[in-house]
Amino acid sequence: MNAIDDALNANREFARRFTQSYLSRRPARQLAVVTCLDARLHVEEALGLANGDANILRNAGAIVTDDVLRSLVFSHQVLGTREIMIVGHTECGLLRFDGQELGARLERQFGPAPSPLAFHVFDDLEANISRQVQKIKSHPWLKSALVRGVAYDVKTGMLNELKGG
Amino acid sequence: MNAIDDALNANREFARRFTQSYLSRRPARQLAVVTCLDARLHVEEALGLANGDANILRNAGAIVTDDVLRSLVFSHQVLGTREIMIVGHTECGLLRFDGQELGARLERQFGPAPSPLAFHVFDDLEANISRQVQKIKSHPWLKSALVRGVAYDVKTGMLNELKGG
Repeated sequence: MNAIDDALNANREFARRFTQSYLSRRPARQLAVVTCLDARLHVEEALGLANGDANILRNAGAIVTDDVLRSLVFSHQVLGTREIMIVGHTECGLLRFDGQELGARLERQFGPAPSPLAFHVFDDLEANISRQVQKIKSHPWLKSALVRGVAYDVKTGMLNELKGG
Repeated sequence: MNAIDDALNANREFARRFTQSYLSRRPARQLAVVTCLDARLHVEEALGLANGDANILRNAGAIVTDDVLRSLVFSHQVLGTREIMIVGHTECGLLRFDGQELGARLERQFGPAPSPLAFHVFDDLEANISRQVQKIKSHPWLKSALVRGVAYDVKTGMLNELKGG
């Protein structure tokens, strides 16, 4: 259990070489990316982004939850982003996962969660990405953003845009 | 409006050089990081993380919302992470921000949001990070994880751990 200590140690070297205090809170490319927490997704490298370029939002499954809508409204209406990219990925942990079974097991083991917890599992990657794109497009406070959905292949590193965005 | 096209073009070169198809869904360092969507936070570089090392969760403010709890339960109980690091940062857009004024303005301009939208603004960075740490520590399904809170300084690149974790 020393991953956090390792990160804090690595950060000392990072800070010693740090030269980017000039960066703005407003993303230089006016881009927001919504993607999964999966460890295999290195967002900046896979999308060619530099520090300062984009707002990056990540949760389990790249699901457009209420929290993602909150964050996107802030990004679009306050930080000035104009394009939103949903990036789902192959081999996602939520793909064909049994969330009900997990919830039941955790409840037996640890007692109930204080508020109900839906895992937002899905059966079809592209259909799921399309649903998330539609949730953003139908939100009245995000209508002026351009939204596109893509799937990342963890075996090839390739992004494949969905037909119809 | 060509940030997404630029990202897709950059990805072709990334995929050509891609060699990491061996990576596991289970984070190598058994680490989950919860941080902000802010464009100035390059999580991997600032924390010395390689691709495959950690689950990374990001939203506006590094707030432990229900969606973050969902994602952390999945990360801890399914993907095997054991340490959770909350990384807030200086100059966060939600710090001393007037969320009610923004909500009222957007409602006048675009009509009401389909579900109410709280921005989770805060007045004190360290107190906010501590609150988020406590939310995780008090969740029965995350009790076996080690949780620590740190603040990232966007002017120096330094992580500063909170007193008391």
